[in-house]
Amino acid sequence: MTDLPSIDAVFSALEDLRARRPLVHNITNYVAMSVSANVLLALGASPAMVHAAEEVEDFVAISDALAVNIGTLSPPWVAAMRAAVMRARALGKPWVLDPVGCGATAYRTQIAAELAALAPAVIRGNASEILSLSGQVGAAGKGVDSSARAEDATAAAALLAQRAGCVVAVTGATDYVSDGASCVGVHAGHALMPLSTALGCSLSAVTAAFTAVRPPRLAAVAALAVFGAAGAVAAQRCQGPGHLPAEICDALYRMDHATLARHARLSA
Amino acid sequence: MTDLPSIDAVFSALEDLRARRPLVHNITNYVAMSVSANVLLALGASPAMVHAAEEVEDFVAISDALAVNIGTLSPPWVAAMRAAVMRARALGKPWVLDPVGCGATAYRTQIAAELAALAPAVIRGNASEILSLSGQVGAAGKGVDSSARAEDATAAAALLAQRAGCVVAVTGATDYVSDGASCVGVHAGHALMPLSTALGCSLSAVTAAFTAVRPPRLAAVAALAVFGAAGAVAAQRCQGPGHLPAEICDALYRMDHATLARHARLSA
Amino acid sequence: MTDLPSIDAVFSALEDLRARRPLVHNITNYVAMSVSANVLLALGASPAMVHAAEEVEDFVAISDALAVNIGTLSPPWVAAMRAAVMRARALGKPWVLDPVGCGATAYRTQIAAELAALAPAVIRGNASEILSLSGQVGAAGKGVDSSARAEDATAAAALLAQRAGCVVAVTGATDYVSDGASCVGVHAGHALMPLSTALGCSLSAVTAAFTAVRPPRLAAVAALAVFGAAGAVAAQRCQGPGHLPAEICDALYRMDHATLARHARLSA
Repeated sequence: MTDLPSIDAVFSALEDLRARRPLVHNITNYVAMSVSANVLLALGASPAMVHAAEEVEDFVAISDALAVNIGTLSPPWVAAMRAAVMRARALGKPWVLDPVGCGATAYRTQIAAELAALAPAVIRGNASEILSLSGQVGAAGKGVDSSARAEDATAAAALLAQRAGCVVAVTGATDYVSDGASCVGVHAGHALMPLSTALGCSLSAVTAAFTAVRPPRLAAVAALAVFGAAGAVAAQRCQGPGHLPAEICDALYRMDHATLARHARLSA
Repeated sequence: MTDLPSIDAVFSALEDLRARRPLVHNITNYVAMSVSANVLLALGASPAMVHAAEEVEDFVAISDALAVNIGTLSPPWVAAMRAAVMRARALGKPWVLDPVGCGATAYRTQIAAELAALAPAVIRGNASEILSLSGQVGAAGKGVDSSARAEDATAAAALLAQRAGCVVAVTGATDYVSDGASCVGVHAGHALMPLSTALGCSLSAVTAAFTAVRPPRLAAVAALAVFGAAGAVAAQRCQGPGHLPAEICDALYRMDHATLARHARLSA
Repeated sequence: MTDLPSIDAVFSALEDLRARRPLVHNITNYVAMSVSANVLLALGASPAMVHAAEEVEDFVAISDALAVNIGTLSPPWVAAMRAAVMRARALGKPWVLDPVGCGATAYRTQIAAELAALAPAVIRGNASEILSLSGQVGAAGKGVDSSARAEDATAAAALLAQRAGCVVAVTGATDYVSDGASCVGVHAGHALMPLSTALGCSLSAVTAAFTAVRPPRLAAVAALAVFGAAGAVAAQRCQGPGHLPAEICDALYRMDHATLARHARLSA
């Protein structure tokens, strides 16, 4: 049985992350690299973007966690993802999969499925991606954006979690974390967030950072709660999506227990 | 005969774009990806950056328009551009060419010319690029920046429009849109804009989004007017170029008819 | 003998840079491209990111300086770096090396050493990178972040400067510039800066811009002083690292003699 995590447990994870400053190895898309690095730095992690086949295995060996994101995939990058993931598994290091745009093209769907079978700690995607990756037919999103609600993907998330033997986080207006047996709802974030690119990708990187200090289910819940709370704080300071990434970084950098508790709520 | 478009017609195009939320497939340069995606999201479109030969044709098929930008070109990307463009033509989908740095190197000039011959809906460039692409000798810019004024490239734009059978937008302090027969001047924008990277590239992506809802000439005029007005609004809130991209996103997100009419003017 | 440069000499270099607007060719990493371009534009230079083997040599020929950064290296990019550097040498154009993450993997360390042997004007790195590149054992940083203090790398910087026959800038809380004989301390910057990604990379690009208008040692000192002063001004306007890159661009754009003198100090 799995208890509902508390906000206290989430904040404790954040404190540990800040104290240990995990090195997070990212193999991510071109659009997300800069904002993911800034989000990880503001959170308290040490990010690196490394994708050459010549060094990914060596870099995994010195890293605390690995984030793999297929947003702008191509064969050389997919080869590096495979090599890095296999090395992470061999070394017992946690890794997180972001199956960006799964369902949009056959190539993308196939690579996402192949990677999902390689024992990630957490898979984090939007509803369309999780529906597609779980094998639901006709779930294609609008390119890389979701055309479904997270609520409609919780059963798919549970199915995928059971099949892949991992934790699945499906994000939307409310976020859900499934380990195949139980489902946690994370209520945080803001409607402006989908209008700023690569925030979902950055959230996957944040999830990887938390897997360096907590087991996958709590890591996923902590990532969604902390990032969502930062998004809510940030949006209050914005008149549009333009400054949202910068404000999210500031909010992550300044996040304290009271702010987290005010802007994130967990439900069974 | 071609009438001078009105600001009403431009705003109507923006309203349709927001209502239809076109999926814009971008094969663009590394520098421009993030800001282009944010600009498209703030405008009301759904952007995706997809460049692998394995999936570009499939992605074109689900997209409403394609933007091709040669800013950081290399052979594998050029191959993907060709494949995507040919598929867009076969499917009757509009595509926009941004010939970044045309004239700076022989390779760049050759690829730009080759792509320009593949029936884009719109070509959008600065004066040096349009002069070079139209075959004017000695028109090389300063790397990717223009060393000529847009006023000095309107004849070249008309020539290029006739030869390529498309609409040509040449941007500068004032922007000009030529269909080979008539020329529209778009008076908007701000002198700070060339000091923030990839705003021209983002404008080309915005042009592609408008081609999903309007014919090429009106799409180009609408893109220049809306983006230029957003730039003018944004610059008023800036003390330098640093926050300009974020402010432009906010201005696009909040753009209304009165603001557009105040900050953009069209002339024959 | 080498005199201690003055703030007047630094500001004069900035004035010349703004007047000449050097074209800076960057072969840099995906994370740094956008912020480096924006920093160079705000400074007064004209940046371009060009990496295809088909055109790097042609582009070097029209550029005033070259910046090479191995942050997200892979074999095709390394080949382009080599070709560009060889052409820069043949043409007598200055180039700057940023050995990002040297020491983190064998591949990265080997490529950094190979490039350092090709007569850069300036090598700019953090303490871990300079210690590793100078051959100090056990100097690996935390991925791409430094685990050493700049003070502990000044002897290594002098050694590397002598061996590579160039100027070495090692950056940290205080920055140091060595030509192998003398060492200048540059006191500027702010503790928030390492929490915003690619600012070190951008500083290397700024250094390249200054090599177009001044000899390597003064160019390096000027880059550190101007960029550090901009960082100090910027940080005063921030509540976290989020807006730091935009604020640095604004501060560079507005930098005047009084602000520079207030926020940067040089020591022997």
